Amino acid sequence: MSFLIEDRYFSPDHAQSAIARRLYQRVKDLPLVCPHGHVDPRLLAASNYDWGTPVDLLIIPDHYVFRMLYSQGISLEELGIPRKDGGPVEKDHRKIWQIVCDHWYLFRGTPSSLWLRDELRDIFGIDAKINSANAQAIYNAIDEKLHSPEFQPRQLFERFQIEVLATTDAATATLQEHQRIRESGWKGRIVPTFRPDAVVNIAMGGFAENIQLLSQVSGVDVTNYRTYIAALEQRRHFFKEMGATATDHAAVTAYTARLSEREADAIFQRALCGEASAEDAQRFTGHILIEMARMSVEDGLVMQLHVGSSRDHNPVLLERFGRDMGADIPTASEFTHNLKPLLDLYGRERDLTIILFNLDETVYSRELAPLAGHYPALRLGPPWWFFDSWNGIQRYFENVVETAGIYNTAGFNDDTRAYPSIPARHDLWRRASADWLAGLAVRGIVDEDDAAEMVVDMAYRLAKQTYKLEA
Amino acid sequence: MSFLIEDRYFSPDHAQSAIARRLYQRVKDLPLVCPHGHVDPRLLAASNYDWGTPVDLLIIPDHYVFRMLYSQGISLEELGIPRKDGGPVEKDHRKIWQIVCDHWYLFRGTPSSLWLRDELRDIFGIDAKINSANAQAIYNAIDEKLHSPEFQPRQLFERFQIEVLATTDAATATLQEHQRIRESGWKGRIVPTFRPDAVVNIAMGGFAENIQLLSQVSGVDVTNYRTYIAALEQRRHFFKEMGATATDHAAVTAYTARLSEREADAIFQRALCGEASAEDAQRFTGHILIEMARMSVEDGLVMQLHVGSSRDHNPVLLERFGRDMGADIPTASEFTHNLKPLLDLYGRERDLTIILFNLDETVYSRELAPLAGHYPALRLGPPWWFFDSWNGIQRYFENVVETAGIYNTAGFNDDTRAYPSIPARHDLWRRASADWLAGLAVRGIVDEDDAAEMVVDMAYRLAKQTYKLEA
Amino acid sequence: MSFLIEDRYFSPDHAQSAIARRLYQRVKDLPLVCPHGHVDPRLLAASNYDWGTPVDLLIIPDHYVFRMLYSQGISLEELGIPRKDGGPVEKDHRKIWQIVCDHWYLFRGTPSSLWLRDELRDIFGIDAKINSANAQAIYNAIDEKLHSPEFQPRQLFERFQIEVLATTDAATATLQEHQRIRESGWKGRIVPTFRPDAVVNIAMGGFAENIQLLSQVSGVDVTNYRTYIAALEQRRHFFKEMGATATDHAAVTAYTARLSEREADAIFQRALCGEASAEDAQRFTGHILIEMARMSVEDGLVMQLHVGSSRDHNPVLLERFGRDMGADIPTASEFTHNLKPLLDLYGRERDLTIILFNLDETVYSRELAPLAGHYPALRLGPPWWFFDSWNGIQRYFENVVETAGIYNTAGFNDDTRAYPSIPARHDLWRRASADWLAGLAVRGIVDEDDAAEMVVDMAYRLAKQTYKLEA
Repeated sequence: MSFLIEDRYFSPDHAQSAIARRLYQRVKDLPLVCPHGHVDPRLLAASNYDWGTPVDLLIIPDHYVFRMLYSQGISLEELGIPRKDGGPVEKDHRKIWQIVCDHWYLFRGTPSSLWLRDELRDIFGIDAKINSANAQAIYNAIDEKLHSPEFQPRQLFERFQIEVLATTDAATATLQEHQRIRESGWKGRIVPTFRPDAVVNIAMGGFAENIQLLSQVSGVDVTNYRTYIAALEQRRHFFKEMGATATDHAAVTAYTARLSEREADAIFQRALCGEASAEDAQRFTGHILIEMARMSVEDGLVMQLHVGSSRDHNPVLLERFGRDMGADIPTASEFTHNLKPLLDLYGRERDLTIILFNLDETVYSRELAPLAGHYPALRLGPPWWFFDSWNGIQRYFENVVETAGIYNTAGFNDDTRAYPSIPARHDLWRRASADWLAGLAVRGIVDEDDAAEMVVDMAYRLAKQTYKLEA
Repeated sequence: MSFLIEDRYFSPDHAQSAIARRLYQRVKDLPLVCPHGHVDPRLLAASNYDWGTPVDLLIIPDHYVFRMLYSQGISLEELGIPRKDGGPVEKDHRKIWQIVCDHWYLFRGTPSSLWLRDELRDIFGIDAKINSANAQAIYNAIDEKLHSPEFQPRQLFERFQIEVLATTDAATATLQEHQRIRESGWKGRIVPTFRPDAVVNIAMGGFAENIQLLSQVSGVDVTNYRTYIAALEQRRHFFKEMGATATDHAAVTAYTARLSEREADAIFQRALCGEASAEDAQRFTGHILIEMARMSVEDGLVMQLHVGSSRDHNPVLLERFGRDMGADIPTASEFTHNLKPLLDLYGRERDLTIILFNLDETVYSRELAPLAGHYPALRLGPPWWFFDSWNGIQRYFENVVETAGIYNTAGFNDDTRAYPSIPARHDLWRRASADWLAGLAVRGIVDEDDAAEMVVDMAYRLAKQTYKLEA
Repeated sequence: MSFLIEDRYFSPDHAQSAIARRLYQRVKDLPLVCPHGHVDPRLLAASNYDWGTPVDLLIIPDHYVFRMLYSQGISLEELGIPRKDGGPVEKDHRKIWQIVCDHWYLFRGTPSSLWLRDELRDIFGIDAKINSANAQAIYNAIDEKLHSPEFQPRQLFERFQIEVLATTDAATATLQEHQRIRESGWKGRIVPTFRPDAVVNIAMGGFAENIQLLSQVSGVDVTNYRTYIAALEQRRHFFKEMGATATDHAAVTAYTARLSEREADAIFQRALCGEASAEDAQRFTGHILIEMARMSVEDGLVMQLHVGSSRDHNPVLLERFGRDMGADIPTASEFTHNLKPLLDLYGRERDLTIILFNLDETVYSRELAPLAGHYPALRLGPPWWFFDSWNGIQRYFENVVETAGIYNTAGFNDDTRAYPSIPARHDLWRRASADWLAGLAVRGIVDEDDAAEMVVDMAYRLAKQTYKLEA
C-alpha cells in the first residue's frame, strides 16, 4: 500500500470528503493552464534537452529547498550552488543528494515536501518516503528516468496536459527560444510575458546598460523619457505579436503617482547618469505603473503586479551567489492609498485587467477583496510564493471570497521555475478548492450544483479567461 | 424538499452539530435587539408605506449587491441607481432584476447570497434558487407580497419580533418621524442615535451650512467653539429625551488628542471660513471624540466609534452618484497609541461605555481584545461591514474571545438599511454563535451549561445591556 | 463523572482524535523543560516557603486574572492588589475569593479558565466547576493543601517532573537565591537568565542608579560606554558561571542600528545625566541589541528578544500600583527592515541562536517564518502572552510551519510567574501539538511516524536543544 492516500488533503469529515472527492473528480484531469511562471523557454526550444543530475533538476534551482537547509546551518557551497566568483563548491551531486535526504525531515509539514512526494511518485514512479537509507536508490531511479526520451520537456508537456504555458521574459529579450518553438512545428502553446523591471527599476544595478540594450532590441534610440516610452511600446507590440497576453511588474510597494513628463524625464536622465535617489526610484516606478496601465488599456495586455518582497535581504549571499537565493523577505503592504492614483485613471476600465499579487496576507480581507469587489479592472491573483500552500490557500479563500466572490479572482497559477513540479502544484490547488467548496456545500452555503461549476472555474476557466488565453 | 437545510452553517461533525442545534433552539425565537443600524425611520412613521418595486427594495439601496455587479463591468446606470445630475438610468425594473438574476452566480459564497436566500424564503415565501429562468417569476412573487397589508413595515416589525430598533440620525435631525411614531400610539420601540459626523468632520463639504443648521435646530447661536459645544450638548439632551441611548462617530482613524480651548476655537473658525487644513481636520476630530466621551460620562449615552473606512475611493462614482456607492475601502487601523489620550482621561470610568468597530481584523487580537480586556469603559462591537459574514464572525470569535472574553463584547447588531434582511442577519449570527460555542463544548473548553447561557448572552442580552436598552 | 474529558481540546473528528490521543500519549509524561519564565527563585531557595492564602497564590500575582475583573468594573483595591502608597486595599482574602468566583463566568472560553481548571484538579485535587456557591469550599480546600509539606515548591518541582527551570534575572542581580539552591544540595536544576533591560533601556526611570548598581556588582567602575560594555560582559560571564544559557531582551520594536563608539558614548553620557531623548533611547537600545548578539557569538549564550508590548498603558494604574498590572497593550511590529542591521552582521552565524517573540501575529507568516526559514541564527519562540492559548497556538502553527518548518522553532516555554500553573500550560501545548499533528496526519500531509517524532520534538526536544540545555 502506498503511504499516499487518494483522498489526501481532504477534510477527515466523511460528509465533506465525499463531496470533495466528487468535486475533485470533475477537475483532476482537466488540462493545466499556466499563465504565470518562470520555466526557462530553452527547455522547450531544445530538441534534446540535458537535465543534468537529480540535483541539477531538484535542488540547485529551487530556493524553497536550499534556503531551508541553509537556515539549519548547511552552506550553499555544500549544496553545490554556483558562486559568482567561480569559487569552490561541492561537485559531487550524490553527496549533495545525501545531505538533502539526511535533512529531509526539516520539510515535514511544508509544501515542498508535498510537491516532491507527488512529483517522485507521479513523474518518476518512486513511491517511497525519502530518508538517509534510500537516498542513493532514489537518486539512481531519478537519474535513470531523466535520461529517457519520455522525460524530454516536450514529452512531459504533453503528458502533463499543459494547455498553455507562459514564460516570464525581460523587456529586452529577443524571444529567440519562443521563435524556435514556433518554427519547430511542435504544437505546444508557449507564450512569453513582458516583464520590464530591469528597464523600469532605476535603483537596480546596470540601468544605463539595460537602456542601451533596450535601444538595440527596439530599434528606438532611447535618449530621453519620450523615446523610452516609445521603446517600451515597441517591445510590448513585439511581445504581443509573439503571443504574449500579459505583462508582469514587481515592486516593493504598490505606490503609484502620476508625474509630469518633465519630472519623469528629469528622473530618467538622473538615472542614466547613476545619480537617481531612492525617492526618484519610488516615484519613477509609481509613474511607470500608471503608464503601463495606460498601455494595457490600449493594447489589451493583462497587467500583473507582484508587490511586497524585500529582495536579497542577506548581503553576503547576494555578493557571493547572486539573486534568488532564498533571502527575499516579505514586508507589509498597502493598496488602498497606494493604488488610488492608478485606479482613479484606469480602475473603471471594463476591458482592462490588472491582477494583484502580494505577500502580506493582512490586506486580503482589508484591502484587496474590497478593491477587487468594486473596481472592474481588478482581479486578485492566487496566493503567492510562501502562501501557495495548504493553509495559505485556505486563508486566501476564507479572507477573499466572502467579499470579492471567486469571480474577481484569477484562478490559479503555479509561478514556478521547477518544471516537473507543475502538476503537483495544480493538484494541490485543485484538491484545496474541492475541499473548501465541499466545506461550503456541507454547511449549506452553496449547493453542490454550484460547487460543481465553481470548482471548474477555479481549476481551469478563471485563469484562462482572466489572462485572455481563450483565443 | 427545500434546498435549504435546517442545520445550515453548522459544522458537519455530528457531535458538534448536535450541540449547535440544541444551543440554536434556545435563541432562534428570541426577540431581535437592533441597537445600531440605518433603517429609515420614515418606514415606520408612515401609516401606508410604498415599498416601490422589488428593485427599489432589494437592489438600489444595497451597495453590497450593486458593487459586486459593478466590479464585473455592469454600470450603475444599467442597475437604475439614480444619478445626481438626473441623467438617464435604466427605469425598467424588470430588466434590472433580470440582469441581477443573470449574474447572481457572482454572489456564490458571499453573505449577500445567504441573506437574500433566507429573506426570499422566510419573508416572501419563495423557496427557489435565483437563476435567469425564474427571474421574472420571482419578481412577480415579491411584487405581489410587497403590496399586501402584511408587508407594511410595522406589521413586519411585529412579525420579526423586533424588541427595539435604533436608527442613525444626524445631529441636526429634528426627529420628526420619531415624534410621529410616538404620537401614533403604535407600541414598537424605535429610538434615534446621535451621529454628529457632519458637524464634526470639518473636511466634509458643507461644514458652515451644517453649523448654521445646528444653530437653528439647537436654538444656540453657534459662533465659536464654546457655543458649538453648547449646541452639541443641547442636541444630545434632545436625542436622549427622544429615547436615544447612544451616539455614533465615524472616523478614518482612532486618533484622539486633547486641544486647548483656544486651539479648538482657532480650528473651528478656520473651518467655518473653509480654510481648515487636513491636519486641522484630524486634530479637531481627535479632540471632539474626547469631548464626546466627556459628555457621555455626563449624560450616560453609549458612545460608538466606527473606524477605518476610506470613503468614496472612486471619484467618478462619487461625482456621478454620490456617497455610499460601494466604493468605501478599508485601511489599516491603530488603536493602542491613537486611543490613549481619550483612555487616559475616561478609560477607567465604570459607567461609560465606548463600543469600538473597525475594518482591520489584525487589530482584533493585537489591540482591541487586550484593550477591551483591560479598560472598564471599552466594549468591542460585532464584526463590521465586510466581516459580518460566516468566516468574518469566526475570525472575530477566534481572535477576540480568548483575551477579552465574550463579556467585553457588545453582542450583535445588524447595521443594515435593508429592513427585510434584519431577521436573516440575526439568524446568521445566532447560528454562528451556536456553532462556535458547540465547537468549544465538543472540545471541553466550556461545558454545555455555560454554552447555553453564553448563546443567549451573545444573541440577545449583551446587546441590550451594553446599549443600555434594558429600561 | 468529571466534567473534564480526557480528550479535551482534541478535534471532535474520530479519525483525528484517535491519532491525537496516540500522539499525546507519547508526550504527556515527558519531563517539563522550562527555558523561559518568571518564577521567583526565592520559592526554590527557601527551605520552608509560605505560600500565603489562595488569593496570594492565584489572584494577586496573576495579571491575566485581575485585569479581566478590572475590565468589568472591579477595582484592583477590591482585589487586594497592594498600592504603592500603602493605601487601603481589601485584606479579607475570603471576600476577594468570593468576588473572583462570583465573576468567574467572565473567563469562559479564555485560557485562564482552562489553566485554573486543570490546576485545581491536578494539583489541588478539586474536581469542581467554580461558582458562587462553592467559592468558600474551594478556598478551604486550596488553603489546606497549600500548608501541607507536599506543596512545598521543591516537592512540586519533582512532582511536576521539571527537568530544568530558567528564572529571569536583572543584570545587576547577585543571584544569591541561585547560589543558595546550589549550596543546598537539592538536585533540581534552576538556571538564571541574563535580562539587562534596566541597564539598557535609558528611557526607563532610574537609569543612573541602575548603572551605579552595575558598577557595584560587576566590580567595573562604569563611567563611559567602554567600561559599561566591560561591565555587561562581566555580568554575562558571571551568569554563565551560575548556569545561565540564555539572555533576554525586551524592546518596544525590533529596531537595530549600529552606532559608532563615539555616538554610543555620547548617548550613554546624556542618559547618565537624565538628558537623553526618546530618539536616543531607541538608537541606544538598537545598538546594544547588536552588541548583545556580538557577545552571544563570543560566549554562546542564547539571545531572546521579546518585542511589541506598549507597557503601562493606563497611567493611573501605573502610578497607584506599579508595573505589570495587566495594562500592557501590544502594538504592530516590523522585523524585515528593523532586524536587518543585526542580521547583516550576525544572522549567518551557525552557532548563534536568537529566539524571536512578538505580539503582532501578522508578522508570523509575513516576516518571522521567512526570516527564520532563511537565517541560521534565528529561531521562533512559541506564541507569547495573549497568544499562549488554544486558538493562538493554532494560528502560530498554521502561519509558521509551512514556511519555517517546526525545526526553526524553539518548542514551548511557559513564560509564567504562576508556578503551580506550569503543568497545565505545558499540557495545553502538548495537546495542541498532538491535535494539530493529527490534523496533518489525517489529511496525509505527514504520516503518523513523522508525527510521532514531531510531537516529541515540539513538546520536549526543541526547547532543550534551542536553549542549549542538553549539557
